[in-house]
Amino acid sequence: MTTSPSTIIGRLDAYREDMKSAGLQASIVPRTDPHLSEYISSHWHCVRYLTGFTGSAGTLVVTLDGAYLWVDSRYFLQGEQQTRDTGITLMKEGLPGTPTIAGFLTSTLKAGDTVGIDGLLMSVQEARSLQGALSARDIKLDVNYTPMDRVWADRPLLPQDPVFIHDEKYAGESAASKLATLRDDIAKAGADAFFSSALDEIAWVLNLRSTDVPCNPVATSFLYVGPSEAVLFIDPAKMTAEANDYLAKAGVSTRPYGEALDYLKGIDSSVKVLLSGSKASWGVMTALDGHYVIGESPLQLPKAIKNAVQQEGIRQAHVRDGAAMVKSIIEIKHIMDNGGELTEIGVAEILERNRRKDGLFFDLSFESICGFGPNGAIVHYSATPESDTRLELNNLLLIDSGANYLDATTDITRTIALGTPSADMRHDFTLVMKGHIAIATAIFPAGTRGHQLDAMARMPLWKEGKSYLHGTGHGVGHFLNVHEGPQSIRLNDTMAPMMPGMLTSNEPGVYLEGRYGIRCENLVLTVPAMTTEFGDFLGFETVTMCPFDRVLFDTEIMSEAEIEWVNLYHRRVYDNVAPLLDENERAWLAEACAPLK
Amino acid sequence: MTTSPSTIIGRLDAYREDMKSAGLQASIVPRTDPHLSEYISSHWHCVRYLTGFTGSAGTLVVTLDGAYLWVDSRYFLQGEQQTRDTGITLMKEGLPGTPTIAGFLTSTLKAGDTVGIDGLLMSVQEARSLQGALSARDIKLDVNYTPMDRVWADRPLLPQDPVFIHDEKYAGESAASKLATLRDDIAKAGADAFFSSALDEIAWVLNLRSTDVPCNPVATSFLYVGPSEAVLFIDPAKMTAEANDYLAKAGVSTRPYGEALDYLKGIDSSVKVLLSGSKASWGVMTALDGHYVIGESPLQLPKAIKNAVQQEGIRQAHVRDGAAMVKSIIEIKHIMDNGGELTEIGVAEILERNRRKDGLFFDLSFESICGFGPNGAIVHYSATPESDTRLELNNLLLIDSGANYLDATTDITRTIALGTPSADMRHDFTLVMKGHIAIATAIFPAGTRGHQLDAMARMPLWKEGKSYLHGTGHGVGHFLNVHEGPQSIRLNDTMAPMMPGMLTSNEPGVYLEGRYGIRCENLVLTVPAMTTEFGDFLGFETVTMCPFDRVLFDTEIMSEAEIEWVNLYHRRVYDNVAPLLDENERAWLAEACAPLK
Repeated sequence: MTTSPSTIIGRLDAYREDMKSAGLQASIVPRTDPHLSEYISSHWHCVRYLTGFTGSAGTLVVTLDGAYLWVDSRYFLQGEQQTRDTGITLMKEGLPGTPTIAGFLTSTLKAGDTVGIDGLLMSVQEARSLQGALSARDIKLDVNYTPMDRVWADRPLLPQDPVFIHDEKYAGESAASKLATLRDDIAKAGADAFFSSALDEIAWVLNLRSTDVPCNPVATSFLYVGPSEAVLFIDPAKMTAEANDYLAKAGVSTRPYGEALDYLKGIDSSVKVLLSGSKASWGVMTALDGHYVIGESPLQLPKAIKNAVQQEGIRQAHVRDGAAMVKSIIEIKHIMDNGGELTEIGVAEILERNRRKDGLFFDLSFESICGFGPNGAIVHYSATPESDTRLELNNLLLIDSGANYLDATTDITRTIALGTPSADMRHDFTLVMKGHIAIATAIFPAGTRGHQLDAMARMPLWKEGKSYLHGTGHGVGHFLNVHEGPQSIRLNDTMAPMMPGMLTSNEPGVYLEGRYGIRCENLVLTVPAMTTEFGDFLGFETVTMCPFDRVLFDTEIMSEAEIEWVNLYHRRVYDNVAPLLDENERAWLAEACAPLK
Repeated sequence: MTTSPSTIIGRLDAYREDMKSAGLQASIVPRTDPHLSEYISSHWHCVRYLTGFTGSAGTLVVTLDGAYLWVDSRYFLQGEQQTRDTGITLMKEGLPGTPTIAGFLTSTLKAGDTVGIDGLLMSVQEARSLQGALSARDIKLDVNYTPMDRVWADRPLLPQDPVFIHDEKYAGESAASKLATLRDDIAKAGADAFFSSALDEIAWVLNLRSTDVPCNPVATSFLYVGPSEAVLFIDPAKMTAEANDYLAKAGVSTRPYGEALDYLKGIDSSVKVLLSGSKASWGVMTALDGHYVIGESPLQLPKAIKNAVQQEGIRQAHVRDGAAMVKSIIEIKHIMDNGGELTEIGVAEILERNRRKDGLFFDLSFESICGFGPNGAIVHYSATPESDTRLELNNLLLIDSGANYLDATTDITRTIALGTPSADMRHDFTLVMKGHIAIATAIFPAGTRGHQLDAMARMPLWKEGKSYLHGTGHGVGHFLNVHEGPQSIRLNDTMAPMMPGMLTSNEPGVYLEGRYGIRCENLVLTVPAMTTEFGDFLGFETVTMCPFDRVLFDTEIMSEAEIEWVNLYHRRVYDNVAPLLDENERAWLAEACAPLK
């Protein structure tokens, strides 16, 4: 996994030689792909190649005499470890004194200098903001700088994995039907056509899947939907007869992936093409030479609002996923209670083995996070062979994991006591659960946005001067990416209201550096709650089916209503999951789900 | 109070004649003054003069053959009643189908038409947005249309009430010191000077008060603060020797009110003048011919963050105000319990009489709202001789009132049971109190904004499909306007974080049409709570000192913590207020403050 500092220094030197040939004084390397994906195929791991940093977010800026890697708080520690002795300066986002990339460039470069970037790797919104800042100082932005094929000799190819059709019995709607709705929505947005770069949106609207990106069953492609024609730009090697046939029936033709921009350039300028300001790249926008409208993607909301078939799949998959979790927890506790040996990676293997037994299992939905004791306090920790830690008694194990099944995507976090938990652990766990329960039981008027609910999850911690810095909840795809928009539950403002059919995580936590981490995560479906003279009210249906560790609850600081919620939830878990267990497992679950009082 | 429909029709006809002479096809009359005030002096009641509508917010649009009055939901009923038979069309803001004013004008007028408005009555932000919409349809905006002196024969003069200096023993800081800070803040904003139109900001920074606007102790004026000079534009008739002397010591000279715009026009174009985008008018901005910066007012935050002297005044004034409230409630209950007669206006008179006895009483801080039974369900109801209702037993009385004392401004709402309250009344009251207590006990990280806390006040109601449409909390001035920014607690996003020293209301409610209204309002000071490894945390100190009606609590649906909060609050109220009462009153208060359980 680790790349030696001298290798990194050599790669950066080669990169700088290329910059000099191109007449650049600085260059920006975002950690994304032309689809602005969060998870990317190996072809696009340019930041990893140039820096050795393996985190899921970060932006590299290379100047003629330096290299600077911007990372967020999740990666302050990992970023420092992985870039040590490479000469790379770690730029810790959000800390006082850390400039923005635009601020850094304008203070470092001089008028007349040029910054290079691949315009396909930056959204319209980001590029506009950057260009505004640079041009105010007479610094130029060259958005056609694509050096990686030249400087990365053994660069992996673009994915060529075959695609397949996601069965309508799971998707609940045909591609043809979704495209018809899409065309209506394009017209409502005042446009004639829509161009999508977002891999999960394309996968959703065409019922198309592949294995291009680990844990994200997407197919590398672009999609153009005009008034009468629809074109999928995709490597022909990826296409199958079944997929060609299905797409043809939906009125979708295919062209090679590399022809997308040229196709856009050839569209008649009378056709107004809708682009998403956050999901379309600067490169796509400039290919359209002015005849575009920037707006919201018309696929975002239909994808986020799960239909009845998807909702039923979500409920069923979570029961089976819950059974796999229960079996795994039983195994882990059994090994630990009997003095056996187990490491964090061993835990991840148990989880994956139990999930893989399911007939509809496709892949994990993200790399499992198993953090023991102090490692659990590192948000988004992922055990590597170097960091892999042996579990011991009398501390906490944080397990955040999930799978893509054909009928749903799961994402669950449980915090498990090994041996006897301390009073502090039980106290902090209970504070986190009080926040979790506040979200799970929330009822709110239609139109309410996630950031209005967020503080309810944090208040029990805030009252004791504790907090967590990550969001409380993110949208979850359907047999797709585990992170999706537009809704979320977080401190920062989000414009998208919670709507019936949306699937969102509920995952407050608390992290005590050097001691332990706690996170309690279920997924919740937004559902109608009631209609009164005051309007329509919505609520959450918890779909995740796995008990929380009973020994960690401190009922002394819980209200009657909170205790009752846990008991009812555990009762539901038992009723749903028990039929999938053998007799011994069922007995364990009965005890794990026994009422708290 | 009521103006006859035929009078209104005549006034609008005269107004239209003036429009025609000016070559206008439409005209906008905002209900504000050149200071963009919420409360205005009689000189500026142009909307009331032209329509008969007496509400505190509304905008009139006059066309050559129609008149349209935009009002918000508070005034749907009152607006209809007061404009009946006048030919005025009521435009209900926020309802589906109601266009914005810009939308209405662009769909009603044709290219080449002109809309007239007095540019002093519209903020820079509003005017820019309106001008953008109109110019897109080739409709012109004439911002120099000032017809009211011509069409309103007996128009009241601008206020000529004398000013006075607000003693530093209450204000806690001299005008000279505030101006020094202001000059630092102007420089930090990248400007050389600041021009303020906001009457409460001018009053605050100069420690100047007057009686120009009912309940708002402000002086009609503009203020210019340059690097070395400061000029107050004010009617010389208003100035006193004391005030002239105090201002001179602070380096402030005076000029006549009417010279403000000419003075701005004469400022050298090298001087960059800071203007508030929301508080400066279009007329002020255009007087500066380009040499301005639009930003936040640098006076807003220093005014909102009360200093130690102000905070102490706030605590003391609320004890005295609480005693006046207690005495009033005793009187009201005594009359009702003994079969006496009392109306809503009678209640307001009792409240005012008891408050006026205080040595530091100056004026009410707003017109008292006393709503009995169904009238309590009309948010912002204000009893008129026509609507005045006699109180009866077995319903609720909602009293929202407050005063300006020299040492603080108060604003308190109590909901009082007359006779025996129904189970529904007690249930709903308790839901409102649960929300009130959630805000009162909130602890949150520094940087938290009011809209993040708002849902906690509403959740107990939301869980039963109930709601309220007004904000949960507004900022409160210090011996100044009862409404001030920048902070608030509301559904809509607000950028300003809660900061130590801010004074804010905490006033959830619920309104059941035709039955009763409930609102429970205390004022809270934002105070530091604790500092931990997770950062600085803030909380609220409740300063209002008056018991909530014990008979309205349904302890069955309250948590132990909620009951304990009420009991501790009532204990504080008793300890603070009892010394200001006579023996009988003290006995009543002891009972009113007895523990709930």
